[in-house]
Order: sequence, then structure tokens, then C-alpha cells
Amino acid sequence: MSADAVFPVDRRPARVAALRDALARADLDALLVTALPNIRYLTGFAGSSALLLVTPLECMIFTDFRYAAQVEEEVGGFASVHIESSSLWSGLWPVIAGSAGVERIGFESANLLHRDFARLLEQGARWHWRPTTDVVEAQRAVKDPDEVATIVRAVEVAERALERTLELLRPGLRETAVAGLLEHHLRDLGSEAFPFPSIVASGPRSALPHARAGDRVLEAGDFVLLDFGAVRDGYCSDITRTVVLGPATNAQRELYAVVQEANARASGAIRAGMSGMAADAIARDYIDACGYGDEFGHSLGHGIGLDVHEAPRLSRTADAPLAAGMVVTIEPGIYVPGWGGVRIEDDVVLTEDGREVLTSFPRHLIEIA
Amino acid sequence: MSADAVFPVDRRPARVAALRDALARADLDALLVTALPNIRYLTGFAGSSALLLVTPLECMIFTDFRYAAQVEEEVGGFASVHIESSSLWSGLWPVIAGSAGVERIGFESANLLHRDFARLLEQGARWHWRPTTDVVEAQRAVKDPDEVATIVRAVEVAERALERTLELLRPGLRETAVAGLLEHHLRDLGSEAFPFPSIVASGPRSALPHARAGDRVLEAGDFVLLDFGAVRDGYCSDITRTVVLGPATNAQRELYAVVQEANARASGAIRAGMSGMAADAIARDYIDACGYGDEFGHSLGHGIGLDVHEAPRLSRTADAPLAAGMVVTIEPGIYVPGWGGVRIEDDVVLTEDGREVLTSFPRHLIEIA
Repeated sequence: MSADAVFPVDRRPARVAALRDALARADLDALLVTALPNIRYLTGFAGSSALLLVTPLECMIFTDFRYAAQVEEEVGGFASVHIESSSLWSGLWPVIAGSAGVERIGFESANLLHRDFARLLEQGARWHWRPTTDVVEAQRAVKDPDEVATIVRAVEVAERALERTLELLRPGLRETAVAGLLEHHLRDLGSEAFPFPSIVASGPRSALPHARAGDRVLEAGDFVLLDFGAVRDGYCSDITRTVVLGPATNAQRELYAVVQEANARASGAIRAGMSGMAADAIARDYIDACGYGDEFGHSLGHGIGLDVHEAPRLSRTADAPLAAGMVVTIEPGIYVPGWGGVRIEDDVVLTEDGREVLTSFPRHLIEIA
Repeated sequence: MSADAVFPVDRRPARVAALRDALARADLDALLVTALPNIRYLTGFAGSSALLLVTPLECMIFTDFRYAAQVEEEVGGFASVHIESSSLWSGLWPVIAGSAGVERIGFESANLLHRDFARLLEQGARWHWRPTTDVVEAQRAVKDPDEVATIVRAVEVAERALERTLELLRPGLRETAVAGLLEHHLRDLGSEAFPFPSIVASGPRSALPHARAGDRVLEAGDFVLLDFGAVRDGYCSDITRTVVLGPATNAQRELYAVVQEANARASGAIRAGMSGMAADAIARDYIDACGYGDEFGHSLGHGIGLDVHEAPRLSRTADAPLAAGMVVTIEPGIYVPGWGGVRIEDDVVLTEDGREVLTSFPRHLIEIA
């Protein structure tokens, strides 16, 4: 896909201009971009092998043979394209050397392996390399309306796939078979990929917050936790629902109600200007007050976009203020080891005057007949 | 899964002993393991967040809350387990400080981000940190019989899923829908995950070696290239077949025959003792001689195991000798831009006196009626 085909406005020039402003403020002459989602955001290139150098005057992208046709189609005339036959790095040095005035170059500390950092110090010894963090990520955290609309499409795919899967859910199915149904529907509905391995966790395994799908066979009375997402035009959705196979017990209802209320409180009160920590505390304080504080061991949520986990974080240590345009998950959970767990996860966009919950799938306890 | 439940013999003690020998030879007191497949290989832990420190006397694994139950089940008494509530790194320093005689510590250069390397230099400044490459990876490259048997199970799942999918292949299906069918069958047959996003590339898109699956609708006469894998007990298979939707043209037959012969020659002649470069040349020289050298732009193959791309490489620059027990892909391809491409990929284990092709799916040109 070319960026132009999907989005009515080509946002790349404005994104690169904003990046250049950020580099100038940081006293950098250029940025070496190694994180693939950052490269996609800035240039439209969706391949799995690339380097990007952004200087005040140019964007230069390096990829390999396999992507020769794709990079031409996606990046076109927006950046100068270099197809490397062996290492992407070997093409980089002469290109930097040919860029007048480039001395101080930032690199992405959280997206550069030590092995490649060693290349900068060795083959790239004539330039000054400066670690940077979250430069492009900070831009990506605030979505433009086209990006939000794309995430909404990914949410819709995920919700319809869940609806179809729940119609087929019954005791006797293996967790992996349920994941297969879910993923089949996701694909049928147009998901390009799976943002992470789908989690289908049943019975006591629902208490393992990152259980994926295993060989366990679903039984009547189980909690079944489904956590998965869809991808449309590179953008991810991320949703969790927990259902009961058959009539719920009182203990299941009680636990579920606490998580549902924590979700509702956080979704109803999160807003731009608040810190991620304050958002996290809305759900956490309620779960704590209900006596389950120790069983909510992860953070409330995270940004979604080209990555399924990106800035901002909604956690006990996130003190930066949230901004309008951020799209985050709200996903409180309670996990009782050996017994079962519940998580309810929505995707929410912050607006100037509040928030819009993008997920509309029912949040009440569903008992599968 | 616990390592014991799946494998008749617990290989972990021997693996850690071999690692300690390698560390002693490299004059290192310990290794900080950050690559998750290496951690799984050494300890059995399959979670997505962990650090492992191996000293002459101890194995110490660090993970977070989400994996508290899982790490206990999988690692049990084999290593001392540290559950960290915030950063895994914060727990590491006091543990190293408590390990007598540990001064020179290796880290994995190809699996440590610069951000975390900076932690070693700052919070870990009292120790000497030495970059290492491929220490555990070299051990993993040679599979034991249990590992080969596990890969065979992953191959069987992939082949049966392909068989079922081809029965449903027809013009009018979208590539993503075909990927959905394939993945649904993979899941139904017990694949735990997808080792990489399944590639379904049709018509001219089959000439894009890494096309994934897109919105293109299959047409009569198309080449359809399917490249995908299954995962069983953590081990991957990786297989590609290219079929024609309807009767093949002479041009399609001719191109296919070249790739099929290149595949057969490489599979028939690869053996332990040969370099990866020599194996690559078997297929490449034949394709070159047929006049398609420029259209085979990737390497012949790669190792498979806990990673779908691991040591060894079969490429133009791989001069190390191959060894018995290595499991590699053999995947020559020819890609004619704008027209179409063919790749035929098998999984092969090298034995003491030859090789065994693990994939048995037909390699002749299949024309889907």
C-alpha cells in the first residue's frame, strides 16, 4: 500500500518537518532511525528490514533486495532509496559522508542492538553519535484523525471476529482451536496480521495474565479470557473480554463486577492533562479498596498505534501528562492463582474535552449458553 | 509446559554445563543471557520477559509478576527464580554482588539494546562487561534427537494444514482469506503460534519475496506462493510451496522446473562438513546457469529451531562448516518482477552420513483444478 492510497492527506512531510524541529532543539544534525514502526510512520515503508537517515535536507532509506519493488511503491519519491545487496550498514557510511554539515547524529537507544552500536563506534567513528530516546515515539503517541480512523477500523474487525467466535464457543474445544477460530475470523474480516499471539486462557489458566493459548480443553463453568487484536493499514487494535461457559457462580460474578467497575471508572474519568499514573490509580484504587490490590499486578494500559505497545504508558510510574489524540488501552484485571482471572480491555482515544471509547463490544458478564 | 513433561530427558543440565565450558574457554566468570530463545533453551522458561545469569555455580532467572506461576511450573527447581515488580534489571545488581568471584561477565551483543548496555555501564559499573556473539546460539544450532523429533511434529502440522488449505484454494478468494484458512488449520492441528506472519502472495505479488498476505483477489492462472510455519513445544517449522490456480502456462512450468531442480540438487548434496556457502552455491550455480541468477536475491536457507531464523546460515558469505544435527531450510526461489515468482522450501536435518528431508509434501508443480 502506498501511504497516499490509504490516507487522504500525505502526512509524511509534516511528520518529517516536526522531527527536524525536534532534532534542531536537541542540537543534532541528523537522526539514524532503526525502529521499523518509526520508519513506517515517517516514510510509509512497511517492510521488515530498513534503516532511515533524516538530515535537515534529505530522507534516505536503506533496505535489501527483497523489498526493492515494495519500497519503490510505498516510499516512491518521498525519500531517496538505497537497495543494499549485503548489509544495510555498508551503504550507510558513504551516504553520510556525502551529507554536508552532518556531524552530530542521534541514534535510537531503545532500538539499536549493542552489535550495531559497535558499528557506529567503529565504521562510523568519524561522526559524533548521541543516544536519543522516544523522539519519533513522542510524535507517534499523538494520533492525527486519519490514524484514529484507521485504529477504529482495526477495532471493528476485532469486535466482529469476537462476536463470531463467541457464537461457536463451547465446552470440549481446545484453547488453540478457539484461537484458530478467532484468527480465522480476524483474517476473513481483513486483518493483515496479528499484533501479538492471541491469548485464549480458560479455567485456572485465565489467572495467568500472559497465557497465550494452550492445549487445555474448555469445560463448563470456565472463565474464558480472550485477548487479541487486529491490524489494518499497519495500525493495531487490542481488546480483551472474559466470558463464562454456562451460568456464572456467585464468586465469578463478584470478581467480574469489580473489574467491570474498575474499567468503567477509568474509561469514564481518563482525560488529557492527567498523568498516566493518575489514570492507573483510578482503577487501581478501586480494586485495592475491594481487597484485590495484590491480584492486579500489571499496569492499567498502554498506547496503541503502529505498535501494539507504544507511548504513553498508564502505570504506577508514568508521571507525564496525557494529551488529546493519544489512543490507549484501559485494561484492569484481577487474577486469582489456581482459580481464575478476569480482564476487560477497551481502546480509548483522548479528545480535547474528554474521551471516546472506541470499543463498543458489551462489557457485562456474558454467560455462554 | 514443563520441559520434563514434553521431553523424556531433561537436557538442561548438559546444556548449562556446555555453556559453562564455553565461558571458561572465553575467560568469562558468567554470562548475562538476554535472548529469550536462549533462556528457553537453557531453563525451559517460555515467557516473553526474562533475564538469565549463568555463573559457574548457579543459574538465576528474573521475570515479572505476570509470569510468576508460569516460571515456577516451567523452571521449577532448576534455577533460582526472582520475580521483579518493576524493572528486571533492578533485581540483577544485588544478585551479581552476592555471587562470589564474578568479575568478568559476558553479555549478548546481538541481543542487548543500547539502552540496556548503558545500564551495564552505569548501574553495573563495578563489573567488567564483555560482548559475546553466538555463544548459546552455537549450542542451539546442533539439535539433539528430541529437538529434531519436535521439529518433525511442527513440520507435520504445517504439511497437513497446507493440504487442507489447498483443497479450498480457488479464484475469488482474497490472499488474507487464504492466510486465514491456513492459520485456522494450523491452530486446529495444534500449532501454538505462528513463527512469522504467513505469506500468501498471488499472481505478480508472488515475485515479492516477503509479501505477506494482502487484499489481492486470486485469479485463474495465478501462481500462489504460500510460506508459513507451525510451532510445537516452542520449535518451528518453515515451509513454502508455490502452486498454479488452473493449468500452468509453459513459462510457469519452465520457471518452476528450474526452482524444483535447484531445490532437489541442494537437498540431495548438502552434508555435514560442507560450508553454508558451498551449500548455497549448489542451488545458486544451477539457477545462474539457467539464466536466473539475478532473480534469486536471497540466501538458500537458514537454521530453524526455537527461532525460525537461527544459525547456521546457508548464504554466499557463510564459510563455517555445517555439522550433523543441524536443521536447516532449503529454499531456492526465482522472482520475475511484475510477472511472478516461485519458491520451494523444505526443512532438512543433517546426519552423520548424509541428510534427511523432514518435509514430505509433494514438490512437483500442483495445478489446482
